[in-house]
Amino acid sequence: MPSNFFGDFFRITTWGESHGKALGLTIDGVPAGINITPELLIAELKWRKPGSNLTSPRQEQDYPEILSGVFENKSTGAPISILFYNNNAEKSQYSTIKDKLRPGHANYTYLEKYGIYDHNGGGRASARETVCRVAASAIAKVLLPQNIKIYTYISNIGDISLPKDYTPSAEDLAQILNNPIFCPHKETADKMIKAIEEVKAEGDSLGGTVSFLMQGVPSGLGDPIYQKLEAKLASAMLSVPASKGFEVGMGFKSTTLKGSEHNDSWYNDNNSITQTSNNCGGILGGISTGAPIYGKVAFKPTSSIKIAQQTVTTNGENTNFSIPKSGRHDPCVAIRATAVVKAMCYLTLADSYLANKLAKV
Amino acid sequence: MPSNFFGDFFRITTWGESHGKALGLTIDGVPAGINITPELLIAELKWRKPGSNLTSPRQEQDYPEILSGVFENKSTGAPISILFYNNNAEKSQYSTIKDKLRPGHANYTYLEKYGIYDHNGGGRASARETVCRVAASAIAKVLLPQNIKIYTYISNIGDISLPKDYTPSAEDLAQILNNPIFCPHKETADKMIKAIEEVKAEGDSLGGTVSFLMQGVPSGLGDPIYQKLEAKLASAMLSVPASKGFEVGMGFKSTTLKGSEHNDSWYNDNNSITQTSNNCGGILGGISTGAPIYGKVAFKPTSSIKIAQQTVTTNGENTNFSIPKSGRHDPCVAIRATAVVKAMCYLTLADSYLANKLAKV
Amino acid sequence: MPSNFFGDFFRITTWGESHGKALGLTIDGVPAGINITPELLIAELKWRKPGSNLTSPRQEQDYPEILSGVFENKSTGAPISILFYNNNAEKSQYSTIKDKLRPGHANYTYLEKYGIYDHNGGGRASARETVCRVAASAIAKVLLPQNIKIYTYISNIGDISLPKDYTPSAEDLAQILNNPIFCPHKETADKMIKAIEEVKAEGDSLGGTVSFLMQGVPSGLGDPIYQKLEAKLASAMLSVPASKGFEVGMGFKSTTLKGSEHNDSWYNDNNSITQTSNNCGGILGGISTGAPIYGKVAFKPTSSIKIAQQTVTTNGENTNFSIPKSGRHDPCVAIRATAVVKAMCYLTLADSYLANKLAKV
Amino acid sequence: MPSNFFGDFFRITTWGESHGKALGLTIDGVPAGINITPELLIAELKWRKPGSNLTSPRQEQDYPEILSGVFENKSTGAPISILFYNNNAEKSQYSTIKDKLRPGHANYTYLEKYGIYDHNGGGRASARETVCRVAASAIAKVLLPQNIKIYTYISNIGDISLPKDYTPSAEDLAQILNNPIFCPHKETADKMIKAIEEVKAEGDSLGGTVSFLMQGVPSGLGDPIYQKLEAKLASAMLSVPASKGFEVGMGFKSTTLKGSEHNDSWYNDNNSITQTSNNCGGILGGISTGAPIYGKVAFKPTSSIKIAQQTVTTNGENTNFSIPKSGRHDPCVAIRATAVVKAMCYLTLADSYLANKLAKV
Repeated sequence: MPSNFFGDFFRITTWGESHGKALGLTIDGVPAGINITPELLIAELKWRKPGSNLTSPRQEQDYPEILSGVFENKSTGAPISILFYNNNAEKSQYSTIKDKLRPGHANYTYLEKYGIYDHNGGGRASARETVCRVAASAIAKVLLPQNIKIYTYISNIGDISLPKDYTPSAEDLAQILNNPIFCPHKETADKMIKAIEEVKAEGDSLGGTVSFLMQGVPSGLGDPIYQKLEAKLASAMLSVPASKGFEVGMGFKSTTLKGSEHNDSWYNDNNSITQTSNNCGGILGGISTGAPIYGKVAFKPTSSIKIAQQTVTTNGENTNFSIPKSGRHDPCVAIRATAVVKAMCYLTLADSYLANKLAKV
Repeated sequence: MPSNFFGDFFRITTWGESHGKALGLTIDGVPAGINITPELLIAELKWRKPGSNLTSPRQEQDYPEILSGVFENKSTGAPISILFYNNNAEKSQYSTIKDKLRPGHANYTYLEKYGIYDHNGGGRASARETVCRVAASAIAKVLLPQNIKIYTYISNIGDISLPKDYTPSAEDLAQILNNPIFCPHKETADKMIKAIEEVKAEGDSLGGTVSFLMQGVPSGLGDPIYQKLEAKLASAMLSVPASKGFEVGMGFKSTTLKGSEHNDSWYNDNNSITQTSNNCGGILGGISTGAPIYGKVAFKPTSSIKIAQQTVTTNGENTNFSIPKSGRHDPCVAIRATAVVKAMCYLTLADSYLANKLAKV
Repeated sequence: MPSNFFGDFFRITTWGESHGKALGLTIDGVPAGINITPELLIAELKWRKPGSNLTSPRQEQDYPEILSGVFENKSTGAPISILFYNNNAEKSQYSTIKDKLRPGHANYTYLEKYGIYDHNGGGRASARETVCRVAASAIAKVLLPQNIKIYTYISNIGDISLPKDYTPSAEDLAQILNNPIFCPHKETADKMIKAIEEVKAEGDSLGGTVSFLMQGVPSGLGDPIYQKLEAKLASAMLSVPASKGFEVGMGFKSTTLKGSEHNDSWYNDNNSITQTSNNCGGILGGISTGAPIYGKVAFKPTSSIKIAQQTVTTNGENTNFSIPKSGRHDPCVAIRATAVVKAMCYLTLADSYLANKLAKV
Repeated sequence: MPSNFFGDFFRITTWGESHGKALGLTIDGVPAGINITPELLIAELKWRKPGSNLTSPRQEQDYPEILSGVFENKSTGAPISILFYNNNAEKSQYSTIKDKLRPGHANYTYLEKYGIYDHNGGGRASARETVCRVAASAIAKVLLPQNIKIYTYISNIGDISLPKDYTPSAEDLAQILNNPIFCPHKETADKMIKAIEEVKAEGDSLGGTVSFLMQGVPSGLGDPIYQKLEAKLASAMLSVPASKGFEVGMGFKSTTLKGSEHNDSWYNDNNSITQTSNNCGGILGGISTGAPIYGKVAFKPTSSIKIAQQTVTTNGENTNFSIPKSGRHDPCVAIRATAVVKAMCYLTLADSYLANKLAKV
């Protein structure tokens, strides 16, 4: 059943497997008149690419071929199709493990559901699909008001966290991309890097949390009841491979507070109605207040590890499983997920932004 | 724009305001041949009703009038319309506060979005809408395999939590409904009740967390990429008023683990492929494994408190705001949210269950 | 599966059976700030009501109870729920025919599909559902630019047709509602009335064609490829009970023409780009040109007739079937269908009108 | 806004312009386990290709590159992406006419709607998009019960029609593809061919009607109210470029009949409930009866003609327009539309077939 699309207005449909010939997407719903060039997409895609010893050695050029919907560098209102060829897929390493259930992976559930599974590189279930989301987000970004700024960063890796009550300064935020682990706090970043290098050496992996922060979002985005902005964000984030949790504003911490502590007061600040605090995370009743929207997304440790684990074959024989030494996997998926979480923020906002054009007569 | 519907297959559309004449819903997509009676709905609705001194004194009969789609107690395939009259709405108390922004409430954002707001009882943004979800869930429950059991319970209220690493026994689960706070652990429940009574006396409120546990869910539910079962659940839960976070399986705790700790191993248990642990929470690659699905939903403290708070009028004048002493609000929304979280579990499963009929030829 | 809704933006979901307690609809997607009163709806509903000896003697008050989404006579952006009680349903007459397949009716196909059927008055398959469409269209009308005028009228009943090449004048159009058969040409109307009275006396029925004409539709409505304005209209019209065909512009006649005859030329008429003719019917490439949109919808003769027909029982026994003498059926469904075709025009335009707000940045 | 997709279950999303680098589609919703090869698609695509002097001289290889969703020749449940390169697009001929409104074409309405237009070969509005529909239909065909047979044929071209009351025999139907005009009646076909050759010589074009006949469709397909099978077919057919009308069963002719003439009687034919006639065209109440489904689709004459026509430039200057002598256009779009109408039949049935799996528990 159709489940490869995201968005009701700015609708992306993605396709392709990790080790197929190509993967890509179609965006149906881009208004006409937007400037679009491959360079815009490449700029956004750069971040998601493996680029350090903390990430997978698989090297894909990820050049976005724009095949339709753009005429003389402007969107025409027609669907935009973007294609990426897979140039660096190595199928050979999968032949030896193709009949084994991979702990933490989707092959068991895909087999149960579909009775067939493309085992090469995880097939459709691979995080490689997220390249399409990032490409789409570059177009969403052009569509949205240009004062919107979205930051995503790592707030913990394993048990190494940002300092308690730390809030990144504007300066810190500006440094995120200069840092292989995308953590705004230098000292913590160094510890995180060391921790990842250690588990990598062991053939193991680590979980991590990605924080997001959206500044400049206008009030009024999000729709009541089942299309609340936080509900759309939650769905967007839990669709990212390996994510296990989402919170907005004070999130789970708000469960420990009293109403008098959590409520944000309103006041008139020089003829502008504003709040004394932003515990709600920029959303009330499912609709943006105009204040920054912030929250977190939890990522489990990478399932593909080189340490032997107990498993069974698809025929039910007990056996062991480990990713071959040559296997190319991220020791911590949260790192590159910062680019994907950011992409999902843009895609969610773009959809809500278009929806909001219909709120009033 | 349409945002009052949930589900692609088992689709509910809800309507109505807190203090209007009635509210209700239409379910479009119920297969023909299911047994449906008002009694089935009443049984499920009972839980959600205020029933103790821990909840709102508003007394609504919540009798579900089934107006269509059922013939001789069986669903016909036609849409099922259910209506609830509002019998105990008191509009008068809202007239004095109608021009004030309510901290933590949706009136500011609704005004920004729509330019108009029904202030009576929170209008459309009121949690009263959830009565429709619970009614719908009773029908979803009949549709689903009868061995599915769903439990929801309170795992913390403010800083009072279930004991670390506590897992409720079957006996504990059976006791949840016998207890005004829906906490399976008697000793903790007593502390929670006391804490709520204290904040209630102060005119304040408390946040809390609702845990969910679904047993007997068949493998194969959920769809790849953007309709992953966890993404649908996340969206469902964040659509519940006052919710601020969602996690599945080990959730945020998984971010602190190594892959070798978090991965669940497979083994052949007497000709059945199963897992040595269930850290993933019963979902892999967005699709149910057949193991129990569990997780948590965070609820902020009730926004409506009787303590004075700073605010502004819709005209921008600084003023104070507090709910009148006669105001009828839950001191902790998490308590009654246990019924709504359960309803959202049923609705999400029903939708995925129908979708799954289309997976294979 | 959900199939009781129409529209992606201005979305109606209807429910209810012919002889149930009530029927109704929810409109999700009405922008905030529109004036709505029951009187507006009643004005539109009046037309559809049986009002002469040419239509069914069933008398329903058809009073629209607006239960939500309207606050102080303005739409709030929340879903609008409208309910109609069935006051004049007579179930008794259906008990004798409940086990017989009714020629031209849906009971066979509903039984094949659902295994269950509400036989009273045709259940869900009854044209009574169209009362909901007309009510919704009154709100669509308020939403649309007020210079849009939509006319529908009868262009043939059986073999009695409007004169060849007749086009109704503005004066003729203004007379449509003054005439029990909604035909703009007095002489033809008289012949049609006579023809209907004759078949009615025989216990038989007649087919007819409804023409539609929409003036003042702005250019730009309709969307490329699968949401072409003519495709949406076609779907809307073929969803009306008893309809068997749809055409726009020259329709089937265009198949007999040459391109040089059918093409409409463009010219500059005093700084306005316009066409020398309007053979295309106001739509090019699926998008409105700004010229009048016109076309036709074919309605088969009423299936319910009082003449005996051969049929079988649901158990397969050969038998005869005829509607009881007391049966209340329209001798020609096309007459009242003029109101429903008009409603579907409004609903389709409203949906396209909202969609069009998203075409350009 | 998204308008380039068709189907709710078997959902195709198409993209690409007539003279772009490529065009293609994604099918999201193909159940797992279906046999798919390029050869299957090529077999279906062959028909749509220009193949005689009655059609456009543009020669495209139309080789379908299947880029995803198929593993070892079987569908996996993942989206299937298919791409066609445009190899024979000639942009040069469009440069001279790019600023002229083309009578009967979409450039005026696209400009009004989007403010931008890809003039090369008609851009997105070109019938070249239909290659995607035919490719998708080859997969829909494999999914459907194999006893379903769909025939489409020309029933009139200009004023040359099949003989009155002619019904093609099984033998005639088998000959359709052997004939450059896809007309089952040899004598009429010869006249039609002559007529087309004449208008072609004049630089003019002709309209035509495509009849469809679907045998072996099981009962129960189609859904009540707004997803009636005839409503879905009508929408599908009116989405085909140049179509102006649709009818099913007796269609517009049914408006001239009495109920006693039009109703199909039921009888028990050797323990099978069947009808004495099939005037309804195999659908009652929006749901298939199991009898053949038949009807017609009207196509206007090709808009692109080589005869000079009056028009204006996009700047509003009055001028003349004619397609260059080298222009490559079909003199009668109805001919190749037979392949597209057939494709839309398959796509509509596939969607309804999947939907029907959800009708009963």
